[in-house]
Amino acid sequence: MPDKVLIYSRFPKSVMGRFAERFELLDAAGKSPHEVFSAEELAGVRALVTAGGTPLDGEAMDRLPLLGAIICYGTGYDGVDLTAAARRGIAIGHSPGANASSVADIAMILMLAATRRLLAADGYVRSGDWAASKPSPMMRPQAGLRGRRIGVFGMGEIGRKIAARAAAFEAEVGYFSRSRHEVPHQYFPTLEALADWCSVLMIAVRASAETHHVVSADILKRLGEDGCVVNIARGSVIDQAALVAALTDKAIAGAGLDVYEREPHTPDALTALPNVVLTPHIGGHTLEAHVAMQDCVLANLTAFFAGQPLPHQVKVG
Amino acid sequence: MPDKVLIYSRFPKSVMGRFAERFELLDAAGKSPHEVFSAEELAGVRALVTAGGTPLDGEAMDRLPLLGAIICYGTGYDGVDLTAAARRGIAIGHSPGANASSVADIAMILMLAATRRLLAADGYVRSGDWAASKPSPMMRPQAGLRGRRIGVFGMGEIGRKIAARAAAFEAEVGYFSRSRHEVPHQYFPTLEALADWCSVLMIAVRASAETHHVVSADILKRLGEDGCVVNIARGSVIDQAALVAALTDKAIAGAGLDVYEREPHTPDALTALPNVVLTPHIGGHTLEAHVAMQDCVLANLTAFFAGQPLPHQVKVG
Repeated sequence: MPDKVLIYSRFPKSVMGRFAERFELLDAAGKSPHEVFSAEELAGVRALVTAGGTPLDGEAMDRLPLLGAIICYGTGYDGVDLTAAARRGIAIGHSPGANASSVADIAMILMLAATRRLLAADGYVRSGDWAASKPSPMMRPQAGLRGRRIGVFGMGEIGRKIAARAAAFEAEVGYFSRSRHEVPHQYFPTLEALADWCSVLMIAVRASAETHHVVSADILKRLGEDGCVVNIARGSVIDQAALVAALTDKAIAGAGLDVYEREPHTPDALTALPNVVLTPHIGGHTLEAHVAMQDCVLANLTAFFAGQPLPHQVKVG
Repeated sequence: MPDKVLIYSRFPKSVMGRFAERFELLDAAGKSPHEVFSAEELAGVRALVTAGGTPLDGEAMDRLPLLGAIICYGTGYDGVDLTAAARRGIAIGHSPGANASSVADIAMILMLAATRRLLAADGYVRSGDWAASKPSPMMRPQAGLRGRRIGVFGMGEIGRKIAARAAAFEAEVGYFSRSRHEVPHQYFPTLEALADWCSVLMIAVRASAETHHVVSADILKRLGEDGCVVNIARGSVIDQAALVAALTDKAIAGAGLDVYEREPHTPDALTALPNVVLTPHIGGHTLEAHVAMQDCVLANLTAFFAGQPLPHQVKVG
């Protein structure tokens, strides 16, 4: 009989296909498992697959008495209470780097589209306004990337890939991270110093209690009136209300977001803005990133059920 | 008295500001000069500024008997009849490379937005469909750039900059050009061979009679069903009707266009397509590219009126 695996978050069916071939899946589809499955069914669950951002606390773990492995689909694991898991002897796996290129690409798309006002430009052509030579304030020339100062917040695998891409656009690249890295970019010791220096801020930091709302009204203001902020990390890193205010008051010029504070909810005050580019958390959503993330999940699950250490384990502490 | 300069194409007023400080401008705003100005006024014109794509033939030159210099704003000069100008001893200037980074950036934006379906993604968030978990076929995962084969057609300054940017996205980059260049990318001896190899074709070739409609239905089909074509060169290089057919029939997956056959006209069959990203010829439309192009125009005009050779002259033949 195949081993049982609980699917804890809501995933598209297509993502689950390869797991279903190897395991018996209990798919809670984003609901609380105890609302969907009986206590008996859950009692046999030794491993679960979750999206790293989905909240998963000690109480939820206690409803799965045999749980030994929490496998995150993707690189993030910010929703998982690491201390609670460690206390219960539950190993946590993820897919480090599997979607890094794909996420870095979305960061660049959002930055380029926001700074060159792609949505307004496409609308200008499709509406017929261009053909009619109708003036549009949104079509005024903007600063390009050559020589522009781009700040990267976080220098993990995604941050490094964003920095390498940005450098190819002839931009100056600086970064802030808890520690200095062996990378050919200027290091800033604080987020404030980075924000004072750059006009484009790319958020690629791992979410944690420490980074909650760290991109504040003050940080945004430091980017300046032609400033642009891009977030592909987690919605919690930006104070979203402060961001909407900064965009509305033109304290900064634009933003590109793939992540939000309460996904999939996006406030009307944000979606009504013309100077933002919004994507529905699709950073890692390419064919090859999905295959790579699934490879990590399968390797983790296979090792776990064989009594081996997880090959892609989150190191705690 | 300042020297007279005829403004032959339609330009935004903001672009002309620096020229007006130095010269007396006769601004035809895109109309035929003889419809706007008297023969007497035109008789004194020794230099004109034009957009390189604007048609300018021997007959038009003959209406300006003292014309000695045609200065193109930007790198292109495909609208100018070079033979007719040479026969009349008229020098042709342009702004080589001044907007290359800015244009290469737009090529990348169009490619990224088309392959990752940015417009559909933004619409999915803004419409509330994401919040409502409404399925969307446009949101299915697509191939990303890592390991993807990107073909660059034309290896001038813009082509080289596109290739360098694409390589930073971990893509494989190949190119076709009349001659092989000293670049770290795979060379293909024909456009057909490049199109067979790549799935993304970036058009960065200088427009000429030779390149008219060279990106044909056959070339597009060779890109394959997940193929994408991006054009930032000139609309004449693609057979636009064949492109609309290929997109409608799903012979290729998408396109990103900054240039069109009859600008600013764009056919409804094109603007109605969901799988295209359209910008209104804004490749060179950044603050720094405008300054650099204006620097070239001013240097050319100043030299011409001083009886010196043009510092940025088009080499004919």
